[in-house]
Amino acid sequence: MQIVRISDISRHVGKQVTIQGWVANVRSSGKIVFLQLRDGSAGILQAVVTMAVANKEVSYWQTAELLTIESSLQVVGKVKAEPRAPGGFELEVSDLKLVHRAGEYPIGKKEHGPDFLLNNRHLWLRSARQAAIMRVRDSIIWALREFFRNEGFVMTDTPILTPTSCEGTTTLFETNYFDEKAYLSQSGQLYLEALCMALGKVYDFGPTFRAEKSKTRRHLTEFWMLDAEMAFYDLDASIDLQERMIVYVIRRVLAEREADLALLKRDIAPLQKVQAPFIRMTYEEALGELKKLGSDIEWGTDLGNDDETLITKAHDRPIFITRYPAAIKAFYMKPDPEDEKLALCADMLAPEGYGEVIGGSQRIDDFALLEARIKESRLKREDFEWYLDLRRYGSVPHSGFGIGLERTVAWLCGLDHVRETIPFPRMINRLRP
Amino acid sequence: MQIVRISDISRHVGKQVTIQGWVANVRSSGKIVFLQLRDGSAGILQAVVTMAVANKEVSYWQTAELLTIESSLQVVGKVKAEPRAPGGFELEVSDLKLVHRAGEYPIGKKEHGPDFLLNNRHLWLRSARQAAIMRVRDSIIWALREFFRNEGFVMTDTPILTPTSCEGTTTLFETNYFDEKAYLSQSGQLYLEALCMALGKVYDFGPTFRAEKSKTRRHLTEFWMLDAEMAFYDLDASIDLQERMIVYVIRRVLAEREADLALLKRDIAPLQKVQAPFIRMTYEEALGELKKLGSDIEWGTDLGNDDETLITKAHDRPIFITRYPAAIKAFYMKPDPEDEKLALCADMLAPEGYGEVIGGSQRIDDFALLEARIKESRLKREDFEWYLDLRRYGSVPHSGFGIGLERTVAWLCGLDHVRETIPFPRMINRLRP
Repeated sequence: MQIVRISDISRHVGKQVTIQGWVANVRSSGKIVFLQLRDGSAGILQAVVTMAVANKEVSYWQTAELLTIESSLQVVGKVKAEPRAPGGFELEVSDLKLVHRAGEYPIGKKEHGPDFLLNNRHLWLRSARQAAIMRVRDSIIWALREFFRNEGFVMTDTPILTPTSCEGTTTLFETNYFDEKAYLSQSGQLYLEALCMALGKVYDFGPTFRAEKSKTRRHLTEFWMLDAEMAFYDLDASIDLQERMIVYVIRRVLAEREADLALLKRDIAPLQKVQAPFIRMTYEEALGELKKLGSDIEWGTDLGNDDETLITKAHDRPIFITRYPAAIKAFYMKPDPEDEKLALCADMLAPEGYGEVIGGSQRIDDFALLEARIKESRLKREDFEWYLDLRRYGSVPHSGFGIGLERTVAWLCGLDHVRETIPFPRMINRLRP
Repeated sequence: MQIVRISDISRHVGKQVTIQGWVANVRSSGKIVFLQLRDGSAGILQAVVTMAVANKEVSYWQTAELLTIESSLQVVGKVKAEPRAPGGFELEVSDLKLVHRAGEYPIGKKEHGPDFLLNNRHLWLRSARQAAIMRVRDSIIWALREFFRNEGFVMTDTPILTPTSCEGTTTLFETNYFDEKAYLSQSGQLYLEALCMALGKVYDFGPTFRAEKSKTRRHLTEFWMLDAEMAFYDLDASIDLQERMIVYVIRRVLAEREADLALLKRDIAPLQKVQAPFIRMTYEEALGELKKLGSDIEWGTDLGNDDETLITKAHDRPIFITRYPAAIKAFYMKPDPEDEKLALCADMLAPEGYGEVIGGSQRIDDFALLEARIKESRLKREDFEWYLDLRRYGSVPHSGFGIGLERTVAWLCGLDHVRETIPFPRMINRLRP
């Protein structure tokens, strides 16, 4: 007997199939028991158990009582179209085997607070919404990787255990590495720069760590980031690539996860509007627009969360904000040749108030300038000797960027908080389960 | 002018193209300079500079002198077939722009020791062999992900920062997590078990950490592992899946990285022989065979590296060794119902002496048995309460396995040491660059 997944059920109408899964819901009506089954694939299948088919193991009379929420079971039956059933199909059960009867399930239909749900994350993941988010996350990851493969990139893993910090020292996790200290990576970028000189176009995609003490709806202490780095790309070429990437990912997710997005009640109209060209404006221009929108932002400060919300709500496409003041950006960014106070950088803000999802820049390719910047930034020269080597031997113009996975998942799923975007979120006060 | 990558050059014969890359080698012969160019894609392109085309920026007379090894440049020229050139094509240069003249390159043609090369890993990656290994690694990663996608798995990221240890405490990296201790994950398996109850079939693919004090050719402190976990799979179904996975990955890599494998001088005949069915034998049977081959292994001990080499060299296909003594395996493995001293587990050993690449098992699905095992293993019950929950609510038979990426790369590339299989290897005494 063929074991079929619920997401494939439409291809088996009129046939006998076996379904293995769990009871999402159960109700009885007269001599019929209606089971709502889930098996981890997209969708719910209604299975109808009638007295006539109740088998020895589970008599009809016991079925509704035995099959508690989240009990696991195997059912055999015939698939038929049934417009009134969720998903449009129904299984006429001819055999039912209870695999394990679940104890009283702690997650019910009543409202639970976020702490209760996060304490039960290992079970909460089974709920239809959470499983749908996980499948959308999977599709985003796949679409990103497929995009870079199609563009001729080589996927390269950069190290997590590093001897130095790339983005400041206040938010580092530290560990003993035999006789010395190591830090958990906050970005693979510097390593990717070495790799792009070897392989041309490269990306990494791994966990990154920030010991963020702040509680916000946009921060995790452990989150996944994709960094890309391209030899011979200037800032504009990098922005063009990012634009293609975002359009590609959204198109793929819309095509592949329609049912899950509907379950999440995600209005897909704003996502369908995400088409090239995106909006591109300088930091200077963004400040002008923000002031008109009521912000009191001053030149020389970074956009706050409120500013990001304000400006992205005023547009229906993503916004690249370019050429921030160099002083508030990282040491490795190339200065704008037309105004050295500015950095050749771009952040991409997602619409609907989601804000910064991508940060990127063209990198300094001149040895002497990088050397000076390392000194000004009071970084230990010896730690960056290898990084300087990249400007000693065949330096090239190069650019790169990093895209945060969880913020992208929150955006595409339409979620308020990143804690639902990753299987087991890590935040301040949250290391379990 | 179209910028073309060297790997695509065969599609541009007779056309003018632009190549951006680095000088891998240079020699002059009479009035002709032969450049060997690399650009990070597979292959080397010979570019011929004649006096007639030397432009103002780089006169012919200076070309050979200026273009030091690893200098970066942009060349324009016409592609022609040239059987005597490496790769079979040649570029007749009509314009040449030096981007950056490299200082004297530290890695030469002479033999360097592994410490020197690892200290210069950021440059060593540019060598043809190392870049080829990175591309094969990329293909293996892709093929694995594609395989699981085709099989209906959901990709899920399990956490790196965890409050407890899964595989013993002696090799853990520890960090302060705000007010408590956290450990870097050694396996995502326990979390994947929760995810497979939510999503049916799941995998993760991320870095894992072991503070290995031993120096061997098969150990890194930071390495990538793919874990898969399948609800409703018994051990045999899991082994069947692993077999399909290995065959799929090898076929994909052979098709896609022929040139790189040739460059690595990998004899592909043994890889072509990796076809289903693989050899399956019990631990008991393996001991019998090992003793005949001269090993003094005793019942109840794990196979050593020498044993793995011995037995894999005696076969031309991978070997699944099943049903090890439960006492030397992890607490969560389901006992063999036919002999409770044995665990329903299987390790896959790769041929040609490469040894263990996959470890897997069916998991305990019975609450009381798991509870007893946690107690016997002196694990803290409260840390595993959530894991026990998976057996409280709709427990199902389930199995899973983990495959080590670096050992797989070493096997498919035919390498002696895992240190060349990852961009920036981490070993005892090796945290840099």
